[in-house]
Amino acid sequence: MNEAPHLTFDPDTPGVSRGHLVVPGGSDRGELSLPVFSLNKGEGPHLLVTGGNHGNELEGPIVARRLIKWLPKEQICGRVIVLPVLNPLAVEAWSRNTPLDGLNLNRVFPGRADGSVTQRIADAVSRVLLPMADTVFDLHSFGPTWDFPPAATTHPIADPDLMARTVRTAEAFKLPLTLVWQHNDTAGMFDIEAQNQSKVFVCAEFGGGTVGADNLAIYEAGVRNALISLRLVEGKAEYPTFRQRKSSQSLETRLSDQLKSPARGIFEPRCSVFDEVNQGDIIGVLHPIDSLTAESTDIRAQGLSIILGIGSGSYVHANEVVALVARPLKL
Amino acid sequence: MNEAPHLTFDPDTPGVSRGHLVVPGGSDRGELSLPVFSLNKGEGPHLLVTGGNHGNELEGPIVARRLIKWLPKEQICGRVIVLPVLNPLAVEAWSRNTPLDGLNLNRVFPGRADGSVTQRIADAVSRVLLPMADTVFDLHSFGPTWDFPPAATTHPIADPDLMARTVRTAEAFKLPLTLVWQHNDTAGMFDIEAQNQSKVFVCAEFGGGTVGADNLAIYEAGVRNALISLRLVEGKAEYPTFRQRKSSQSLETRLSDQLKSPARGIFEPRCSVFDEVNQGDIIGVLHPIDSLTAESTDIRAQGLSIILGIGSGSYVHANEVVALVARPLKL
Repeated sequence: MNEAPHLTFDPDTPGVSRGHLVVPGGSDRGELSLPVFSLNKGEGPHLLVTGGNHGNELEGPIVARRLIKWLPKEQICGRVIVLPVLNPLAVEAWSRNTPLDGLNLNRVFPGRADGSVTQRIADAVSRVLLPMADTVFDLHSFGPTWDFPPAATTHPIADPDLMARTVRTAEAFKLPLTLVWQHNDTAGMFDIEAQNQSKVFVCAEFGGGTVGADNLAIYEAGVRNALISLRLVEGKAEYPTFRQRKSSQSLETRLSDQLKSPARGIFEPRCSVFDEVNQGDIIGVLHPIDSLTAESTDIRAQGLSIILGIGSGSYVHANEVVALVARPLKL
Repeated sequence: MNEAPHLTFDPDTPGVSRGHLVVPGGSDRGELSLPVFSLNKGEGPHLLVTGGNHGNELEGPIVARRLIKWLPKEQICGRVIVLPVLNPLAVEAWSRNTPLDGLNLNRVFPGRADGSVTQRIADAVSRVLLPMADTVFDLHSFGPTWDFPPAATTHPIADPDLMARTVRTAEAFKLPLTLVWQHNDTAGMFDIEAQNQSKVFVCAEFGGGTVGADNLAIYEAGVRNALISLRLVEGKAEYPTFRQRKSSQSLETRLSDQLKSPARGIFEPRCSVFDEVNQGDIIGVLHPIDSLTAESTDIRAQGLSIILGIGSGSYVHANEVVALVARPLKL
């Protein structure tokens, strides 16, 4: 290790700065320079916006670029730091994890200075950028193989005050969905590290499927709405139109809300996002691939719920998650 | 080679038959049994419907399954043979090509009896199933990384009579798009082999992106419309609703209609399918991944045209196709 991670500029300088977050090299590869934008307008909230945590979720990097384009004209106070691509190695490979060490960046926080490249990225972000922010928006999506609505999400947080502030900030995106997500695979997430430092952290899940112009406008509107609520920019927050509706729901989902494939075969989705289903309703059908005489299997709802996400029609293995359901959020 | 490819049943038997197309084993792997459905109602058209030619296009296998479900109640004459999954090895790997030999099934027709597994599948289809049909529908899609409308397509065909009949059959799907596609990578396509045998061959391109319930209903309606026009089933053909419109366009596209990325970087789509663009209009933007000071590059329309397909926002390499445009079809 030749040096400590650092920014190539001083973000306390008033106005716009552009430079890099330097992630020191290690035994697996040399130094990385991640492009960073900063706009300092003095007193006010300190926001960090990141994208490209997972390399096959390009909605975040594109929306971060758009934000960088209009912030100089519109930001009225505070400081916004934008890092569009946290993990360029994964983005260049269109891969969730880093090909070089096989690690998921969003499971190795706070990282290690003497670790492999993914751990060194997490370490640089945790030590250099995170202390500069009081609020963090990490821009994800559900990737190309799921239908999922544009959402602002959080996991449950033990501190009730931080939880309330986090849900309020997530709802300020005014995206079609605000989601509290309870699962047990949270060790090493960027969220946890930020919340341990008492910061408001919202994980945006910018839909699923193809990344197209119409949906990008919705995601951009969500970030703008959140910045308006933080009073970093002026304007009127509006619900964007998603599938002909201008509305928002706050839902919660648990591990037990996952619907899994009972066997391998071709999964045929029969529901769409935000459909309400009752116990026994067919959510999808599983077709065996090797026979036209064996019966197909219906995959049914376990109870009254709302379709949160549904897998794309594809070949699935036994026990693979094919749909997620949710219910109204009770805090 | 232990035997010739064959069906495990006699499709001349009246009524429904279910069995397999046996693809003999070779040096790379043993015999394959591809599930086949047949419904013989005597005199009338002989139709062959295939899906799963490419393993990451599951729209076809799912629609073929639906067809098998309602044909017994609805078919009034002729014979329909359905093979939902041409290439199970590729489907199980969610891969365009066959992992075992790396071959694209749709580039090895008419296949080889003594070749690798992909070539043996093509050989079995060419020798056993193709002679049984006068019309073939091969159900493809544009895959998960493109926005593309539901379409019935053909390449230009030298024989003007066969070309006219093919376009008429493609238009009978009443999908949002009928497309004549001119490109030079047609050697070994299933289309060419079928057309060499003077058969009407329509390649359905069932959209792009996630395979969801709403779009599957459109694709199924397209196949039903085509069967109505062949008088295999009774009913009234109707334009399905795609993005709030019930309409259809007949377009043609050429190799020179591809728009390519000028460099590597993150592609941001700025247009949607069926948008009309004029020369100089921005279709997408290419962002460098390693700098926020270097300018992004606009990718612009070369002339008056209609957006046919646009790539999902993703990391692209130099010279990668990011959009396809088209113009009204003139026969």
